[in-house]
Amino acid sequence: MAQLEETRSRFLALYDILKHELMHDADIKFTEEMRLRVEEILDYNVPRGKLNRGLAVIETYKALKGDELSEEEFFLASVLGWCLEWIQACLLVLDDIMDNSQTRRGRICWYRQPKVGLKAINHGILLKGHAHRILKKYFRGKPYYPDLIEITEEVGYQTSMGQMLDLTITHEGKEELSKYTSDVYRRIVIYKTSYYSFYLPVAGAILLSGEKLENYEAIKEILIEMGVYFQVQDDYLDCFGDPEVAGKVGTDIEDYKCSWLIVQALELADDYKKQILCENYGRSDPTSVTKVKKLYQELDISGKFSKYEAESYEKLLAAIEAQSSAAMQEILMALLMKIYLRNK
Amino acid sequence: MAQLEETRSRFLALYDILKHELMHDADIKFTEEMRLRVEEILDYNVPRGKLNRGLAVIETYKALKGDELSEEEFFLASVLGWCLEWIQACLLVLDDIMDNSQTRRGRICWYRQPKVGLKAINHGILLKGHAHRILKKYFRGKPYYPDLIEITEEVGYQTSMGQMLDLTITHEGKEELSKYTSDVYRRIVIYKTSYYSFYLPVAGAILLSGEKLENYEAIKEILIEMGVYFQVQDDYLDCFGDPEVAGKVGTDIEDYKCSWLIVQALELADDYKKQILCENYGRSDPTSVTKVKKLYQELDISGKFSKYEAESYEKLLAAIEAQSSAAMQEILMALLMKIYLRNK
Repeated sequence: MAQLEETRSRFLALYDILKHELMHDADIKFTEEMRLRVEEILDYNVPRGKLNRGLAVIETYKALKGDELSEEEFFLASVLGWCLEWIQACLLVLDDIMDNSQTRRGRICWYRQPKVGLKAINHGILLKGHAHRILKKYFRGKPYYPDLIEITEEVGYQTSMGQMLDLTITHEGKEELSKYTSDVYRRIVIYKTSYYSFYLPVAGAILLSGEKLENYEAIKEILIEMGVYFQVQDDYLDCFGDPEVAGKVGTDIEDYKCSWLIVQALELADDYKKQILCENYGRSDPTSVTKVKKLYQELDISGKFSKYEAESYEKLLAAIEAQSSAAMQEILMALLMKIYLRNK
Repeated sequence: MAQLEETRSRFLALYDILKHELMHDADIKFTEEMRLRVEEILDYNVPRGKLNRGLAVIETYKALKGDELSEEEFFLASVLGWCLEWIQACLLVLDDIMDNSQTRRGRICWYRQPKVGLKAINHGILLKGHAHRILKKYFRGKPYYPDLIEITEEVGYQTSMGQMLDLTITHEGKEELSKYTSDVYRRIVIYKTSYYSFYLPVAGAILLSGEKLENYEAIKEILIEMGVYFQVQDDYLDCFGDPEVAGKVGTDIEDYKCSWLIVQALELADDYKKQILCENYGRSDPTSVTKVKKLYQELDISGKFSKYEAESYEKLLAAIEAQSSAAMQEILMALLMKIYLRNK
């Protein structure tokens, strides 16, 4: 644990360096106001998360090398890790606007800041642009550079397709709640969450270590399943988690989200209960929200979640143990342990 | 002219092919609804513009080759041209949201379509993702592929910096209109318009022809100046153009934009007129807008624009004639003639 903390603080130290470079990019003729604006955008949105994706790059790279990383290796893995955090910042800034969210990481969402508003769209795009600037600066000329760019773009594309599926199905759900099925749910989650939150950090580290992604198809499947498990937890915490701990107030019910909870509830509910769900899901008045939550309790969705959590853990564990590479086992176990039974 | 029309229709024919491929991308497990949704997004936003950027790639490539293009060459140049139109679609979709625009290309803006709204943010991101998919599919493995990706990303970054500068200065202008100076204006326009509308299509064609961008620094300067001239026209048409012809109703005055017109007006106005501008610029009531337009007339901003247009043309012409390469002269002249005295 102490070592993980040390990794985190070494990783965090790099943020200021990257930020400084972006603020003083010689290719851009900044005004002083712009420079300060960029700093504000970055400080608010980039470094304040759990940093799971960024740290996963370092941890995975370390496991693949099978040894402590040299200064240079640690540095490069951290740079790549920060690129993912920059991309994550872009996604969160834009998603929060589309989802009409209130809070994020314990503060009001960036786009709700005075003077920001829809300019946040531009800031999101800028954050993505920054990730590319960083990749170019540090990895151009490396043999794996084209693959790194490609996997980043591909995963970005998959994520935007997932987001689109999510937004489209939410719209359809408003007309017919029964469209929210397990299959639809899985498809959204795999595209929207698994690829970029679980596969991308590991894929980045694989490329960094000089290996080809084609040789790691089996672990891709495991990472994708881990992403689904992670999103189910997210959905559960959105409704039953502590907002103080999570740093955000859940609004999935109000927002008509195709959440794991509603999918389960629809599977378990009789016609009468289904009717209640249809009448109250997706409404923002507290009475309707309470009715939905009460129904979740009556159907023991929490119990179902605990069961799902235990089963997923077992399945993932078995899949990990079936891996032949000890390094890969170590990486996957570390990722799993980071999210197993999480409350934030 | 007949040849240009032929080029345009051959270029347009490719759109359906590219669209079909994106709708049937084997890497994405589409639902039928999603597929149709993607088609709607594309048809509404991609092919209905003037296609200047896309066609410029083909024309430039042709001039560089100094000969008619083979089928294969025409095809590849068209593919690259469409990538730029896809990127342009992304920028317009997002800019219209941020600028709160009403109409675009003769129809209401995409985000104002029923059922779209802020989901348009996701659609913008998707359009950008498509551009990368197309680049990857057709150019991966070509020696100029990494440069092509990089110039696209770099120009995208510059454009988002320009958009940011624009949005930031608009905000500051609300507090102090005198911040709108010629210097500020030029900086916004170069980043926001010149790079992607003028430099990128030519840069793309240069790479396609197997040349290096470093050898074309001189024409980059000319293209950037052409972009400034183009944006000045755009600002003029926003106020004095015919909305029927332009396909959009200008709202620069209402939106407090740092437009070429207000910059000129501030330079020419005495204290009394400056006061009127400060009191009425950036207000959406028709009385205020009329007062600003009346003042533009009193200050003969139209006359100043005609003078600027003539002078810019002369300067650009001189710069083009000073170029040693006949091919480059041809390209630059063709681009200039496309925008000189334009009314849309």
